[in-house]
Amino acid sequence: MDLKKTIIEVFKDVNSIKEEGALASYIPELANVNAKKFGVHISTLSGMNFGLGNFEEKFSIQSISKVLSLCLAYQMLSGELWNRVGVEPSGTAFNSLTQLEKDRGIPRNPFINAGALVIADILLSNLADPKRDLLTFIRGLSGNQDVNYSSKIASSEKSIGYRNVALCNFIKCFGNIKNEPEEVLDFYFDLCSIELSCQDLSALFLFLANNGKTIQGNKQILLPSKTKRINALMQTCGFYDESGEFAFKVGLPGKSGVGGGIIAIHPGQYAIAVWSPQLNAKGNSYKGMKFLEEFTTLSQLSIF
Amino acid sequence: MDLKKTIIEVFKDVNSIKEEGALASYIPELANVNAKKFGVHISTLSGMNFGLGNFEEKFSIQSISKVLSLCLAYQMLSGELWNRVGVEPSGTAFNSLTQLEKDRGIPRNPFINAGALVIADILLSNLADPKRDLLTFIRGLSGNQDVNYSSKIASSEKSIGYRNVALCNFIKCFGNIKNEPEEVLDFYFDLCSIELSCQDLSALFLFLANNGKTIQGNKQILLPSKTKRINALMQTCGFYDESGEFAFKVGLPGKSGVGGGIIAIHPGQYAIAVWSPQLNAKGNSYKGMKFLEEFTTLSQLSIF
Amino acid sequence: MDLKKTIIEVFKDVNSIKEEGALASYIPELANVNAKKFGVHISTLSGMNFGLGNFEEKFSIQSISKVLSLCLAYQMLSGELWNRVGVEPSGTAFNSLTQLEKDRGIPRNPFINAGALVIADILLSNLADPKRDLLTFIRGLSGNQDVNYSSKIASSEKSIGYRNVALCNFIKCFGNIKNEPEEVLDFYFDLCSIELSCQDLSALFLFLANNGKTIQGNKQILLPSKTKRINALMQTCGFYDESGEFAFKVGLPGKSGVGGGIIAIHPGQYAIAVWSPQLNAKGNSYKGMKFLEEFTTLSQLSIF
Amino acid sequence: MDLKKTIIEVFKDVNSIKEEGALASYIPELANVNAKKFGVHISTLSGMNFGLGNFEEKFSIQSISKVLSLCLAYQMLSGELWNRVGVEPSGTAFNSLTQLEKDRGIPRNPFINAGALVIADILLSNLADPKRDLLTFIRGLSGNQDVNYSSKIASSEKSIGYRNVALCNFIKCFGNIKNEPEEVLDFYFDLCSIELSCQDLSALFLFLANNGKTIQGNKQILLPSKTKRINALMQTCGFYDESGEFAFKVGLPGKSGVGGGIIAIHPGQYAIAVWSPQLNAKGNSYKGMKFLEEFTTLSQLSIF
Repeated sequence: MDLKKTIIEVFKDVNSIKEEGALASYIPELANVNAKKFGVHISTLSGMNFGLGNFEEKFSIQSISKVLSLCLAYQMLSGELWNRVGVEPSGTAFNSLTQLEKDRGIPRNPFINAGALVIADILLSNLADPKRDLLTFIRGLSGNQDVNYSSKIASSEKSIGYRNVALCNFIKCFGNIKNEPEEVLDFYFDLCSIELSCQDLSALFLFLANNGKTIQGNKQILLPSKTKRINALMQTCGFYDESGEFAFKVGLPGKSGVGGGIIAIHPGQYAIAVWSPQLNAKGNSYKGMKFLEEFTTLSQLSIF
Repeated sequence: MDLKKTIIEVFKDVNSIKEEGALASYIPELANVNAKKFGVHISTLSGMNFGLGNFEEKFSIQSISKVLSLCLAYQMLSGELWNRVGVEPSGTAFNSLTQLEKDRGIPRNPFINAGALVIADILLSNLADPKRDLLTFIRGLSGNQDVNYSSKIASSEKSIGYRNVALCNFIKCFGNIKNEPEEVLDFYFDLCSIELSCQDLSALFLFLANNGKTIQGNKQILLPSKTKRINALMQTCGFYDESGEFAFKVGLPGKSGVGGGIIAIHPGQYAIAVWSPQLNAKGNSYKGMKFLEEFTTLSQLSIF
Repeated sequence: MDLKKTIIEVFKDVNSIKEEGALASYIPELANVNAKKFGVHISTLSGMNFGLGNFEEKFSIQSISKVLSLCLAYQMLSGELWNRVGVEPSGTAFNSLTQLEKDRGIPRNPFINAGALVIADILLSNLADPKRDLLTFIRGLSGNQDVNYSSKIASSEKSIGYRNVALCNFIKCFGNIKNEPEEVLDFYFDLCSIELSCQDLSALFLFLANNGKTIQGNKQILLPSKTKRINALMQTCGFYDESGEFAFKVGLPGKSGVGGGIIAIHPGQYAIAVWSPQLNAKGNSYKGMKFLEEFTTLSQLSIF
Repeated sequence: MDLKKTIIEVFKDVNSIKEEGALASYIPELANVNAKKFGVHISTLSGMNFGLGNFEEKFSIQSISKVLSLCLAYQMLSGELWNRVGVEPSGTAFNSLTQLEKDRGIPRNPFINAGALVIADILLSNLADPKRDLLTFIRGLSGNQDVNYSSKIASSEKSIGYRNVALCNFIKCFGNIKNEPEEVLDFYFDLCSIELSCQDLSALFLFLANNGKTIQGNKQILLPSKTKRINALMQTCGFYDESGEFAFKVGLPGKSGVGGGIIAIHPGQYAIAVWSPQLNAKGNSYKGMKFLEEFTTLSQLSIF
């Protein structure tokens, strides 16, 4: 079946759904986003690039950045990374402290907030200028030199980020944060504030569909074995406690953010990004999930 | 690369590893199995069938049967199934009661014991002769008319099955078991006692690699969309609280049992069964996990 | 102040309160009790006996019997008892399984269901004829030879006692139940079914206000040091996860049952029993709590 | 029996015990205390004051101060206090975050760290100069104008207080901290750093044995009904998850601190303070617990 046609059809169908869900109201700045935005963009290994709706408009990628910081850390380190963070689905909400208490400061995986804080800490310890180096990494992969942190979003999150402050200090008390919590949190809030469009996202993540190699430039960003593992992690842990549901309905590795974005990867085929800011009860984009479910059903292009 | 060659090479390599792990000592009868047994068998959509080691010897498939009972239930029912059991990884051990208390009797997924008890209850309510009907289902799929329950294993498990009795009565008290706990447990213990060889297993599970259709006979056992979902569930929940690790290292949907067997599926390609009775700390076959990890690494045939 | 007058006044006051709470509907037979019943009876060390309302009417004492079975076990054993059951408040509901999972089958205290099941198991192992021996013990203490188990109540509880079956089998799987779960449960359900009046109860429990000695007969039932400990346990654990509230508001050691009875002890002074079958959300008698709170406030006779 | 004689005898006995337990090593400054210190002091309503050992030496009272800040808050407020903090034993360690997650930021009681942080927050909102006002309160009650915060101890705790920072921010994210976490923590760490001797402590806490009234000056610090409730709370929650054990063995309301101090109250009779810095596994003074257990056993002066 023709991919473009499928996308057009599903986009039209999902776009007509009455809005459901709610904006991520707990971050003041995100509550101001236009709830009706809806965009999608696909980049395939065969060179196709195709978008619909608000696919060129930037939005706050939030937790999607956790995959990027993990890739950057995984480039530099290997096994030792997994001594400090697990690879198992959490079975609890993205910001739970209960699991950390039981496991004495070792987050279940790098995609819950606790895990991403530990990855941020690792980057702080291993990079000369972490904020700059991460931007360089992202700009290189997306081919967009304008990518940047949003100080507006970052400071909005800082103003109410008590739970993340709690998480970071809690991990610190178990010794699994090495730098000062303030530094780690500062970097973490910046990380979450990065703004990208669907077009940027699918271009940027395409290397994960290509065994770790960029299409343009043919540069090996991650070893194939590490790439496979990042994809596996997105499959089992990418959607908080809705990860099983996403695998079940969509059947692709992916990652969501409370800004309403979702990136999904079909290894060997494509990367696809969706954006719609209204979230379901588990904090994932309502229309984004719907779109991807219908898309993989119609195209029969899931990994399962 | 040549699949047979890869299997021969990896089998030799893993076979030479010094035994690690331990037999599932909590079930008396399983503790008597020869710890050195090691077999593997692959069945591909292209018609290849190839085995090594003790691949023709029957063993107790234990929790692998949870996939079979789920498939049988999913044939008859659809959405309503998921009102009684979730699709999320549990984040806890396979026999935990804590999660059930929090979620008021709804098991996190059909592959933890609690979930399998609910599925057994559903089969009891929907089949004329559940024990016979399940055997018929399995015999048909595996092409082996000798498949049977082991009354020795079943009664061995019953004699110490206090925890499963606890689980079943606990779910009953929340109303999510409809039949009498004794009946459900009787069926459940029989289910776990089924004996199959690696050869039987890979033949039997091949339909899950083939969009739900059998190779011989071309019979649609499950709809493609349901097949995809079963595979997704095996990916996220098939290995108790080591599911993330299995996805991470092996990268295939699969299911393990405390008898030391593992079945793994590569959608569109093959089904592969491994058996080695010594288990790691999480209750999964030590050598089985090793074999599959090396096999997908060398063959580069994972879904990610 | 005059005790009788205080009781009359408070009784009148609380009796006029509009019914609140609900009958223990989960035990079918208890749901048939007349919700308007209200009785109170005090027995003092100085020899006063005084009752009001339905103080001579028998009701199902339910969990109040847990104190009696504990006293009987504590007569025979000492330190070793506390290897099998703790002395700490549970912080969770009376029938929670979560705590047991964490503490590997050691109940937090003897007054939650799990703890009472372990005490029942201990009595089964240590008495020639546990059911008869317990009756003899209770008849002796209350001076009422008609005290008996209610087979109607016991079988009503058995018919829906799935959660207790779960608890007992769960503890068994950790090895902290020595007899067969069916036997333990049979004894436990009988225990809970004992019927006593407020008059019986305050007479029966008076020895706990008297350093372990009966008034009539001057017989040492429990050593003073053991008596003190039983009272301490009632103070910290007698009201499930409302124990703190009861200490806070009433300030006496005591024990409640879902039949709507409460016994409270003022060491050195008196024992007082109240009965009103409507329960608050935590499973304790609504009017019973109210009565005791007002009574200790007005009489200024609390231990604190 | 003669109280002084009993104290002398028990002191001698416990003093001869080989040191057990360990200093509170997690607070650097507390690890420097001489482990052999041992003091005791009693103040009775009948006017007796008697001490032995290092009873005049100041030590860090740590969590004992949680009773003082609660009394100060309870003077000003009444019912509304208990909307923000519970009165139930926690069933978990003193610094657990798991319970808070379940109860959405309402600490189980005012004597776990979480509860004391909420009380500190309440004082910050209700007092003109909280640090000064608390000192005034304590100086008045103890009759010792030299009582003060220890900036050395406070800054030692701040340097490693990540877990308390986590707790405070976690409660804040549920809205149950009204002031800025930094301010609350600053006050809290100061609170814990107060230094008092056994002599000071028993003098200071005597009003709780006297229905809330001071002996000298006959001043009503707390209403009798509120005093009773403070004592009840100390009984059920004063020793973290060893509260049941303390009630069981000692049988008096009391409060411990990781500095090795314990205060215990016998309503209507006396207040007694013990200090020995080596702690048992639950964080309570090893010798202090032993002393009080033997003392109430020998004197038969417990409340039960």
